[in-house]
Amino acid sequence: MDKVKEIVNQVIVRGDDALIELTSKFDKVKLINLNATIDELREASDSLSEDVKISIDRIWDQLKNFHDSVKPPNIGGGRDGIYFGIIWRAIEKVGIYVPGGLKSYPSTLMMAGIPAKVAGVSEIYVCSPSRNGKVDPALAYVALKLGVKSMYKVGGAQAIAAMAFGTKTVTKVDKIVGPGNLFVQAAKFLVSDKVGIDGIEGPTELVIIADDSAKPELIVKDLMAQGEHGPSTFLVFISWNDSLLEKVNGILESLSKGNSSDMNFYLVKAKDQADAVDIANRISPEHLSLYVRNPRELLSLVRNTGAVSMGYTPPAIIDYAAGPNHILPTNGWSRFRGGITVYDFLKPIMYADAMSPSKDLVRASITLAKYEGFQIHGESIGERYE
Amino acid sequence: MDKVKEIVNQVIVRGDDALIELTSKFDKVKLINLNATIDELREASDSLSEDVKISIDRIWDQLKNFHDSVKPPNIGGGRDGIYFGIIWRAIEKVGIYVPGGLKSYPSTLMMAGIPAKVAGVSEIYVCSPSRNGKVDPALAYVALKLGVKSMYKVGGAQAIAAMAFGTKTVTKVDKIVGPGNLFVQAAKFLVSDKVGIDGIEGPTELVIIADDSAKPELIVKDLMAQGEHGPSTFLVFISWNDSLLEKVNGILESLSKGNSSDMNFYLVKAKDQADAVDIANRISPEHLSLYVRNPRELLSLVRNTGAVSMGYTPPAIIDYAAGPNHILPTNGWSRFRGGITVYDFLKPIMYADAMSPSKDLVRASITLAKYEGFQIHGESIGERYE
Repeated sequence: MDKVKEIVNQVIVRGDDALIELTSKFDKVKLINLNATIDELREASDSLSEDVKISIDRIWDQLKNFHDSVKPPNIGGGRDGIYFGIIWRAIEKVGIYVPGGLKSYPSTLMMAGIPAKVAGVSEIYVCSPSRNGKVDPALAYVALKLGVKSMYKVGGAQAIAAMAFGTKTVTKVDKIVGPGNLFVQAAKFLVSDKVGIDGIEGPTELVIIADDSAKPELIVKDLMAQGEHGPSTFLVFISWNDSLLEKVNGILESLSKGNSSDMNFYLVKAKDQADAVDIANRISPEHLSLYVRNPRELLSLVRNTGAVSMGYTPPAIIDYAAGPNHILPTNGWSRFRGGITVYDFLKPIMYADAMSPSKDLVRASITLAKYEGFQIHGESIGERYE
Repeated sequence: MDKVKEIVNQVIVRGDDALIELTSKFDKVKLINLNATIDELREASDSLSEDVKISIDRIWDQLKNFHDSVKPPNIGGGRDGIYFGIIWRAIEKVGIYVPGGLKSYPSTLMMAGIPAKVAGVSEIYVCSPSRNGKVDPALAYVALKLGVKSMYKVGGAQAIAAMAFGTKTVTKVDKIVGPGNLFVQAAKFLVSDKVGIDGIEGPTELVIIADDSAKPELIVKDLMAQGEHGPSTFLVFISWNDSLLEKVNGILESLSKGNSSDMNFYLVKAKDQADAVDIANRISPEHLSLYVRNPRELLSLVRNTGAVSMGYTPPAIIDYAAGPNHILPTNGWSRFRGGITVYDFLKPIMYADAMSPSKDLVRASITLAKYEGFQIHGESIGERYE
């Protein structure tokens, strides 16, 4: 945390110079320009294979459809002479962090950018570490589809600081979203008294609950797919079926013998279906898979998780294309928040037009204001309506 | 911040003992029990005058009606062989902080508690400093109406620490909401990597925009009512009408001569209506008053604020009874979030049941997974559907 504070302070004090120096120091990349030019983005995007372009377009369409269906309408109502409601307003400037460097995650840019765009965010900015100064072709393709205002080739805690405080080149945003390593997340926490954040995302988590309708090979496949995110991935399989638990255990053991896998799996024996869901609720995992005959029935018992893959559905299809987000609460955060939706980019502005409020409500307000010692509050209401 | 860290650490290490000591030290109150008994609450509540009880009941009804109208339905949809949607789940355990001591704020407990209850929160806990070990009668009355699980007679940073980490007496909650002084807000920030918070609330703010339909005396009254919250209240009046600005200025000057008022007002001359709203948007005030002939037209231009009182409506009636909340974003936070609604107590759990996804979507997922280097992700999808 002290290291991250030092990085954030450097960016506040020295702006772009600090970004160039820190990128050279940590990422070993000498940046000529922090901000990818439109020509750079077009050139990178043009080099992308047709196959990947078509895939992104197809997935885009599916994700947009999901988030369109979630977008809330404004609410207007009223009662007893008071007209009231909520107007949903999009956040104006949003910064999306996309991890990068050796790998690239166009899917993550879609997962954050599409709900932002559906919500109506007018200015989307992206920070993602470049590959030797170059923007990944698929990332460039998605950025252009999103119509981002700027794409900065900066990563790490310094990128978060730049978007939170602004530099000569990097625009100060209203909210920062997206996954990232420990430094990125620590920086998000540090700046979260100044700027909105989606949350603090840690290593990924998957809990699978299965009954005897599930195929043990596919359970293991799903666990291993999630495990691709790295050795700190938290992987749990829960069942009340001894035979299934043994089969899954057997496959995992045979794999660990033959392979240099560094994945850790937890197998849990539950009493029954309800107990299995109860255990999952207490874990509050990022991803939950209900690989059972009656997934909708079990879903009704689920309280704490980010996203649920139901029945035969592999969790990986949610990571890419089913509709729900893959930027989800980890580390128990699903106790109090969900994954990224349009709601992360909308604010409810409440309003009231008290044209002729009922007399008893006016009286009640004045009485309570006086009780709390707010004399002038009461007068300001009384002089209007009494 | 260092003082608050020290307080939080004491509560983590020494639990209830620390709470009793710190309450004695800071609030000069010797607590016999941290947790108000049901008999204590009933006794306090019974001592409340009938007049205030009726007022609370009437306001309760109005606020509940507002938040009922805001509560979202679950969303279920689907496309191309994938069934998907969102289930809104209430947070299980919520802690509400209500400032107290010399004054008491039953309205604040309603503003936080009613949307929590409407959302379906099953366990509501309250922390509020007592008056010499006694619970305020109106606060007790509202707490009983809410059916709170516990009401703790503890305030300050130590109360936030107790709800975030739990002690022998105080239950660890999933999210903490509510206003409070600088220490309370600093503590909320410090624990916000472990537990949800609504935001960090600072001194209150009001911007009034008025045209020549507004009465200058009422404008001044509204500014002064807001100013009752203390000398750090931020008060701004904006108009394009010179005569109105002069009249408001005249009244304020005559008041400041005759009175020992320590309020500070800012008067701003705008070019026109649109410019006035533009200035307000840049301020991003907690409260905005549109004291104009055409408030709904101006509302359509409002982007950043917590709550809007329209037309003839005094902001104070929103503080008590109109429907919208009075726990609202301050210090520019309305750029990225709104005031307390049912959404602060609900989480969107996303789900997908991909029974027979279209072939091109399956292909697209596998292609993108491979592009990103997630081989097993792709396999887990391919082995299911291909």
